[in-house]
Amino acid sequence: MVAKTKMNNTNHIGLIGLGTMGASLARNLAHRAYKVAVYNRTFEKTEEFLNKYASEGEFQGCETLEDFVKSIQAPRRIILMVQAGAAVDEMLEKLMPLMEKGDSVMDGGNSFYKDTETRQKKFAERGLFFFGVGVSGGEKGALEGPSIMPGGPAEAWKLFQEPLEKIAAHDFEDRPCVAYMGAGGSGHAVKMVHNGIEYGMMQLIGEAYMLGANGEMFAEWSTGKLQGYLIEIAAKIFNKKEILEKILDVAGQKGTGIWTSQEALAHGVPVNTITEAVFARALSAKKNLRKHSEKPKALKSSAPFALPKEILESTLELGFLTCYTQGFDLLNEMNFSQKAKKSEIARVWQGGCIIRSQMLKMIKIAFEKNEEIHLFENEEIQKKIQENLPALRELVKTAVEKGIPVTAFGSVVAYIDTLATENLKGISLIQALRDCFGAHTYQRSDKDGTFHTDWESETPTS
Amino acid sequence: MVAKTKMNNTNHIGLIGLGTMGASLARNLAHRAYKVAVYNRTFEKTEEFLNKYASEGEFQGCETLEDFVKSIQAPRRIILMVQAGAAVDEMLEKLMPLMEKGDSVMDGGNSFYKDTETRQKKFAERGLFFFGVGVSGGEKGALEGPSIMPGGPAEAWKLFQEPLEKIAAHDFEDRPCVAYMGAGGSGHAVKMVHNGIEYGMMQLIGEAYMLGANGEMFAEWSTGKLQGYLIEIAAKIFNKKEILEKILDVAGQKGTGIWTSQEALAHGVPVNTITEAVFARALSAKKNLRKHSEKPKALKSSAPFALPKEILESTLELGFLTCYTQGFDLLNEMNFSQKAKKSEIARVWQGGCIIRSQMLKMIKIAFEKNEEIHLFENEEIQKKIQENLPALRELVKTAVEKGIPVTAFGSVVAYIDTLATENLKGISLIQALRDCFGAHTYQRSDKDGTFHTDWESETPTS
Repeated sequence: MVAKTKMNNTNHIGLIGLGTMGASLARNLAHRAYKVAVYNRTFEKTEEFLNKYASEGEFQGCETLEDFVKSIQAPRRIILMVQAGAAVDEMLEKLMPLMEKGDSVMDGGNSFYKDTETRQKKFAERGLFFFGVGVSGGEKGALEGPSIMPGGPAEAWKLFQEPLEKIAAHDFEDRPCVAYMGAGGSGHAVKMVHNGIEYGMMQLIGEAYMLGANGEMFAEWSTGKLQGYLIEIAAKIFNKKEILEKILDVAGQKGTGIWTSQEALAHGVPVNTITEAVFARALSAKKNLRKHSEKPKALKSSAPFALPKEILESTLELGFLTCYTQGFDLLNEMNFSQKAKKSEIARVWQGGCIIRSQMLKMIKIAFEKNEEIHLFENEEIQKKIQENLPALRELVKTAVEKGIPVTAFGSVVAYIDTLATENLKGISLIQALRDCFGAHTYQRSDKDGTFHTDWESETPTS
Repeated sequence: MVAKTKMNNTNHIGLIGLGTMGASLARNLAHRAYKVAVYNRTFEKTEEFLNKYASEGEFQGCETLEDFVKSIQAPRRIILMVQAGAAVDEMLEKLMPLMEKGDSVMDGGNSFYKDTETRQKKFAERGLFFFGVGVSGGEKGALEGPSIMPGGPAEAWKLFQEPLEKIAAHDFEDRPCVAYMGAGGSGHAVKMVHNGIEYGMMQLIGEAYMLGANGEMFAEWSTGKLQGYLIEIAAKIFNKKEILEKILDVAGQKGTGIWTSQEALAHGVPVNTITEAVFARALSAKKNLRKHSEKPKALKSSAPFALPKEILESTLELGFLTCYTQGFDLLNEMNFSQKAKKSEIARVWQGGCIIRSQMLKMIKIAFEKNEEIHLFENEEIQKKIQENLPALRELVKTAVEKGIPVTAFGSVVAYIDTLATENLKGISLIQALRDCFGAHTYQRSDKDGTFHTDWESETPTS
């Protein structure tokens, strides 16, 4: 039903921004029997949307923001689906004066979580509520059921709970893939880390492809222990291998991977594999350098070779687990009041989102047993490490031998080996060097206290 | 000569903050015949300083900031040596009202370069000048000659040029290790990157130690191709091996390494090895996890082994070159008006600083030939890569085989191999995945334009 005439207070929910994701979400809401007011900065896009999808549900296309706001039942629920950054603030500046106390906005884009917190404060000053909401699943997920990570003022969460539960994907036990992530920017922070994990997993998939005989292995893997969305779509991509082979090998990025690494650095959390994946994309952009660096190239074996697919499958399993582990380790260090349990986040990621995989079952159970755990402390995951580590060693050694770059797999083995080394002699030496040149002091393993040594003097000190 | 009585406009220069670095710099200035006013927040420290060092030169210890400022010749030059962060702003708030138009302050601490720019604006509003100055060399360097990286308003540089040139270390051609780094926060930015390189080099040294038979190799190396400060002090540390072995293997950090990685991420510059070094310290902090992760440990060979020291020396050379390369690549992307040439930065780092090494001769020449180059494009450096890459491959393979973590060396080989790979098939697959789930589009290698494919459809597309 198309309704362009003004009807006040009739729509259940409003949605701004009819790009790929916004249009899909609006349709998803309408499919669940919500009356949806839609608005787009250019009305042409709204008309186009209505022409295409009006028959799918009850939409009201609004030409002005005033009409749009008025058309929604109070307290109003408005979903914002515009590009992260300045566009969000521009829209909010126009929107805030039109809203009434108790109304709320959910930003469903990939906004930086600290921006979300700034916006929440502005909203709170006016008696309005602002939510930062991670929505993962791409166009298809948004339409058929995304994974949804909302964070914001707890008192307003009830307003959104029902519609979000209705449109969300389902987890392995058929519950909706949505949960309140906590106060502040927690929703966008969880989505940021989700995307960081996604960067890591994709880089590992790319490296496995470079080490394998062909891409047909992905179809086989998509029903095995690697079962999950990224493997599934990789398999589909190899149905169009002739296109894949024409794609320029320079990777784009939109920022969430960078933010994840920057946040991890700020919190002192080692997310080695995620960051190597981010840097791998930056390295790919040095196409000119890669084209002309003939000298090191000459060192590489040119004979074609491939690792057995069982080796690749095992290392990918271990690599994926390491990416999840690093992401959850970061989430553990980020502070938000009322923040969701990690077991709950693992559950919400089981359906709809890009990083969904059957591994999230084991991960959810691990956190249910012990919420504070580093995943490598979990017995089941330790078993996985045991099982797959020989394959990972073989893969990395072979890649290094053949000159095939494995920035991500290399970091996985180093991460695991560091955490398996009780005594890192190299780190003791670093502490001595720091104490030597900067008097930074050190601690000792045999007694408490803070110590300094005059390393340059000839006389022995204790 | 101690002069506590008030003498106005007599001192050449003032210095605030008599901690390790500040005291050394003040003495260095006095040794070069400058009359130095000194001030410390607690006057006890000033008295202590004067009791110890008054005989070394002409100092005036001031009890109040007012006396201190008045005692300096106008236009005043004041060097600030207090802890980076809030302490700098607190001191500046007190100092600014006492200063007169044309006066200037140099912050010689490890301040974040963007903070420096904020402070410069405040100073400029009052007709004052503010400089962010990187000072490297530790206590000894500050006393005997540090490497100095000043950045700030060009019109005030002349005020500081002479004293800084007098107290600085000397480069390989005996010129002072100081140069104007450019406007804004350039001085602190260059120092930040210097420290990032330092993190990378130290981690590599630590890893070499874990793979070698003993630490005695460092003494041998300190006169060879690895000649440089860090190797030199590592050699000294092994004279006190019994202390080294008691040092707790948990590394501290003060922030500059983290900033370097964060900035590199923001600029899209791959500084893989530097960042792995930062994360290696974060991993070392997970001591509890390392202690109890017995399962992966069981997989490792427990037999003692050591790589030949020639292998270690070659890989360290290549590793150090890679750290310098990544650092200069970041400096290339950071924008400051009137910024110093990279050949000049390489020159300033030849003496006094922590990362000084004979390799900076080759690096300076490389940038003199071509300022815009990525160092791997330089013929001499390509030769070094050629020569040392087989050793690096052997080292990484051995470490992975034995379960000895080489986060940094692993990243060096991956960095080199990525830049030597003309066609990164894995990256093409990543682009296809991104286009599949997010319609992010891709470019092609065979024609211009931006493309999107419906990867999930059964029908072939072109």
